[in-house]
Amino acid sequence: MASMEELLPPFLRHGNIARIDGGDVVITDRRFLPFEMREVRCHGYAEVAEAIRSMATQGGGPLEAALLAFLLATRQGEDLPDAVAVLSSARPTNTTMKRTLEAMLARVQGGGDPEALVEEAFRHYDLLYDAISDIGETLIRDGDGILTRCFPEHTFILSVAKAIRNGKHVTVYVPETRPYLQGSRLTEPCLRAIGAECYIITDAMNAAVMAQGLVDKVMTASDLALADRTVVNKIGTLSDAVAARYFGLPYYAFSLSIDRTKVHKDIVIEYRNAEEVKHAMGTPTASAEAKALYPCFDIIPPSLVTGIITKEGVI
Amino acid sequence: MASMEELLPPFLRHGNIARIDGGDVVITDRRFLPFEMREVRCHGYAEVAEAIRSMATQGGGPLEAALLAFLLATRQGEDLPDAVAVLSSARPTNTTMKRTLEAMLARVQGGGDPEALVEEAFRHYDLLYDAISDIGETLIRDGDGILTRCFPEHTFILSVAKAIRNGKHVTVYVPETRPYLQGSRLTEPCLRAIGAECYIITDAMNAAVMAQGLVDKVMTASDLALADRTVVNKIGTLSDAVAARYFGLPYYAFSLSIDRTKVHKDIVIEYRNAEEVKHAMGTPTASAEAKALYPCFDIIPPSLVTGIITKEGVI
Repeated sequence: MASMEELLPPFLRHGNIARIDGGDVVITDRRFLPFEMREVRCHGYAEVAEAIRSMATQGGGPLEAALLAFLLATRQGEDLPDAVAVLSSARPTNTTMKRTLEAMLARVQGGGDPEALVEEAFRHYDLLYDAISDIGETLIRDGDGILTRCFPEHTFILSVAKAIRNGKHVTVYVPETRPYLQGSRLTEPCLRAIGAECYIITDAMNAAVMAQGLVDKVMTASDLALADRTVVNKIGTLSDAVAARYFGLPYYAFSLSIDRTKVHKDIVIEYRNAEEVKHAMGTPTASAEAKALYPCFDIIPPSLVTGIITKEGVI
Repeated sequence: MASMEELLPPFLRHGNIARIDGGDVVITDRRFLPFEMREVRCHGYAEVAEAIRSMATQGGGPLEAALLAFLLATRQGEDLPDAVAVLSSARPTNTTMKRTLEAMLARVQGGGDPEALVEEAFRHYDLLYDAISDIGETLIRDGDGILTRCFPEHTFILSVAKAIRNGKHVTVYVPETRPYLQGSRLTEPCLRAIGAECYIITDAMNAAVMAQGLVDKVMTASDLALADRTVVNKIGTLSDAVAARYFGLPYYAFSLSIDRTKVHKDIVIEYRNAEEVKHAMGTPTASAEAKALYPCFDIIPPSLVTGIITKEGVI
């Protein structure tokens, strides 16, 4: 049977997200994919933080790059608390990265071996992805049409890969996910690489593909999932969940860990630079004088969430 | 009081959509707006048909260009039945253009004066826009936030212009409307020109702006409206109408004329070239190997339509 690593599209395999090369962290630059395969070579944690800030990598990428930067900092005798502070602040919404780095720092300061600890952290996530995608796979039936959103990374993509390995035919509808186009640029190539049938749609075709009977369920990743089943995910996901409810379809979100420290009213939606909504691939799409809005995430209320897929099962 | 013509943004005024210049029809090319003001000079109806086919103009533009091409054909002694057939086939979904040209041909063949008939046709539409927007205006309240979709042209834009003239403050949320970006390129500049507060959003932010309490109603044009209150409009409108229903907001569609000859099951959704979904402003956004879907229109069932705004009132 194929290993988890073999089931993943090459793009999501270890070393292809970020890797250590000599004294540098080399990060796969997602901004030019799928057209150009570029790398960003970072000498030291400050340059890794800068690469994260400039969106060279996103999703689960910053965590991997930051762990490798932390490991290099230990090898090179850098100021570790400063490294953790600088790396954590590079993507404030990524609280998983911050928590993981802070736990790592405490254990190294307590005498732990950084090499073994970082290896353990990578292994922890591999086991997590494997366990969650085993559960995700059971929710996919032969012949399913699935609507996703943005770049749902390891959890959803592995679930689909395992479903295909088990002989199920899966068709995925991928909204392009403006303005950054993660759907067109990252998700579609990954799903095609694992043998899924895959169609790019524009962002508001969500209801149309449901009305045509093409969709059996909606499945996305989540940036944050709360104990009350509130989900925070890429802008557009609320539109998907509302449409799923109207058409009587289930909506599932994958979560690496439920955040039990927050409640619904703690969530503040991040607004990013509205200029991005007025450009596509760097080309202007609107007048310079036009105003735009770029709320980056949607909050999906518990009533629209059929289940959150975690390693413990579907909540 | 300002005339209807003065209330319109310059882009939608007579002569700025299409005009006769000597022996040619000159069409404002919408493909490069708002960045470049280009014109397509057409010598004869076949070149006008070709300009329509190549999307130099869209929405209500083809009707105006075709009427002028028909008028020129009468002046130049061309084969009128052929002119009507060639022009009508340039945009098969535009049945209003076909019906208007065929009625015009019959009346000219019956001895009518083409100059007077074409002037009458333009005046007919002006009166129609004026009457419909009077009704649309009454549905807009001071302080309203309105979500629209695509380029809702004279009816919606005049309704907003009249509301502003009457001292109402109106904020419009304009989805960019991929892949052709009518929202960013055409609707936003027109709304800004008439003094509306206006924000471009990406196509799937429809539910997000509603969840934030920014939207009081959804108002769009329609490509087709049936007597049973079924509406056909740009892809994405079903997503808007479904979200409006979930958030308890009304959805209104403007219609120049209810089509009483068709029923719901007659509607066949046109699929356009999926390559357009894989490009933005001519720049590739996805792998050449990727598959995409481009259903061009949504069918909105009567149960999601609060009212159709016609010259006779709200149905």
